[in-house]
Amino acid sequence: MSDRDLNGEVRGRIARIRLVLTDCDGVLTDAGIYYTAEGEELRRFSVRDGMGVERLRTMARVDTAIVTREQSDMVARRAEKLGAAVFLGVRDKLSLAERLVGERGLTLEECAYIGDDLNDLRLLQAVGFSACPADAEPPVRRAVDLVCDHRGGYGAFRELAEVIVAVQG
Amino acid sequence: MSDRDLNGEVRGRIARIRLVLTDCDGVLTDAGIYYTAEGEELRRFSVRDGMGVERLRTMARVDTAIVTREQSDMVARRAEKLGAAVFLGVRDKLSLAERLVGERGLTLEECAYIGDDLNDLRLLQAVGFSACPADAEPPVRRAVDLVCDHRGGYGAFRELAEVIVAVQG
Amino acid sequence: MSDRDLNGEVRGRIARIRLVLTDCDGVLTDAGIYYTAEGEELRRFSVRDGMGVERLRTMARVDTAIVTREQSDMVARRAEKLGAAVFLGVRDKLSLAERLVGERGLTLEECAYIGDDLNDLRLLQAVGFSACPADAEPPVRRAVDLVCDHRGGYGAFRELAEVIVAVQG
Amino acid sequence: MSDRDLNGEVRGRIARIRLVLTDCDGVLTDAGIYYTAEGEELRRFSVRDGMGVERLRTMARVDTAIVTREQSDMVARRAEKLGAAVFLGVRDKLSLAERLVGERGLTLEECAYIGDDLNDLRLLQAVGFSACPADAEPPVRRAVDLVCDHRGGYGAFRELAEVIVAVQG
Repeated sequence: MSDRDLNGEVRGRIARIRLVLTDCDGVLTDAGIYYTAEGEELRRFSVRDGMGVERLRTMARVDTAIVTREQSDMVARRAEKLGAAVFLGVRDKLSLAERLVGERGLTLEECAYIGDDLNDLRLLQAVGFSACPADAEPPVRRAVDLVCDHRGGYGAFRELAEVIVAVQG
Repeated sequence: MSDRDLNGEVRGRIARIRLVLTDCDGVLTDAGIYYTAEGEELRRFSVRDGMGVERLRTMARVDTAIVTREQSDMVARRAEKLGAAVFLGVRDKLSLAERLVGERGLTLEECAYIGDDLNDLRLLQAVGFSACPADAEPPVRRAVDLVCDHRGGYGAFRELAEVIVAVQG
Repeated sequence: MSDRDLNGEVRGRIARIRLVLTDCDGVLTDAGIYYTAEGEELRRFSVRDGMGVERLRTMARVDTAIVTREQSDMVARRAEKLGAAVFLGVRDKLSLAERLVGERGLTLEECAYIGDDLNDLRLLQAVGFSACPADAEPPVRRAVDLVCDHRGGYGAFRELAEVIVAVQG
Repeated sequence: MSDRDLNGEVRGRIARIRLVLTDCDGVLTDAGIYYTAEGEELRRFSVRDGMGVERLRTMARVDTAIVTREQSDMVARRAEKLGAAVFLGVRDKLSLAERLVGERGLTLEECAYIGDDLNDLRLLQAVGFSACPADAEPPVRRAVDLVCDHRGGYGAFRELAEVIVAVQG
């Protein structure tokens, strides 16, 4: 990551990031949901992404919050484990992000977002630094600052975290 | 998807689609079934495919129905979540499809189908537009209009949905 | 599969196969075992392989039996679903195979085996036709008649089944 | 593995290994953790790696111990099945390793370690032979003696085990 080509303007924007927002399905997971006959669900997360949340906090003093359209208790459990804030059932991610940065006395320019699908586009285009996993939907890949080398659930979030840590560290 | 090569005749057929039928195992999943010692099963679906069902409905007013040979409660739970119709334990998929289009006052030419295995061949050859995941069985790949770039459980259904939305949108 | 290069001598051996034995972990699965805190386990099987068992039975009248070193109830559940015989906790696979073919009035030349690891080598070298998944251990890949294009849990068994059906069908 | 390029100095170090320590998440697993709504977790291990633990013990009389930062009962269950020692909740892996080799009358030069992330670096640099999975974090890949061809959870540990067995066997 340290040898990644980032021009000076982009590095300047990354240097200002104080809060990282992340989608859940397709970013922290590979978009998979596991169903049983009772409808109970499993989701698969990555320990490496967890280390990314920790490194953002300890190496760069940057907080992470999960923002998802789903109403999912298992996402809440994962957030708890990570020590990250979590917002479930969010239909309008941009409005939520505006509220979150406002509460912290920040602006959207000091906020990064990583998402993978069409309902992430508006927020991706509004933040100071935007990213998506390698396997995001094509219109998302065309819209972001950073298309990660890693897929969702397999290190995309960690890759974003290391980019921020490298610039700010 | 928008830049996909589809000739005029095929686009004409896609433009007429009002109903999308989909196989479950190998299309909405990667053909995996998870067993416990008690025989309980899990199946893995994709949130991205769920967004495909939603986009077909909202962007193109096209309904989706799941048609599977298996008797599986977990498929029923997934369909419920998607707001899609579901038909379990179907041995003759072509007959079922004929009944479904008849009830809606449609013809098979207005129906698309995506399947991955040999028991899908008859229906694939009868509908107006046919597709399969990248990793479908070889005879299926040779029989369909569209071999998706994505594998089953990893966006094949979504890819079909976006093709239809792009042509009809 | 129909265009696969198999010389006449090998095709002759495949034509005589009446019984297919298969390892479980690494062949019917991708070698993964899922643990919970209670030690309960999950294994992932493939619906496509299930179709292979069915096609061997209906298209070629060839039976399938699962032979595994593990003592696993979930393998027993999967075998039940497939209508295949299953032998658990088998330390000496060659001796078991000799007993199984004897009971059926067959010889090992009329038996095929697919395995992925070192404890499968003796049986692989004794049967009339031997195969392994694409990702088998290197000494196994060097020892078999057919190295499948598919990995364990992702269609290797189905590929073997289709080879036999194509030759005998 | 037998034809792997290992120079004489490295082979000499491998020949002295009496104890293999291994990280869990990202080495014995692909870094995935599965959550339910209740927060229960699943982890996926590989049967092939289990065979590696067994072959180290029977072919080279080398013991294996799992060393992980996580407090996870499912890792304990897996270790029990493998007949391997396990140390959970370890923050300082190097100190633990020093204690373990001391108790056995060994030195760190007689110890191998395989890890995938930044918190593994100090121990990786202290042991006699170090390895990581193909998909380890970049700074880890740059620091070890052996970057495995296999990814974590898909045979990386087994590959290390076979290298040791091949040199010592």
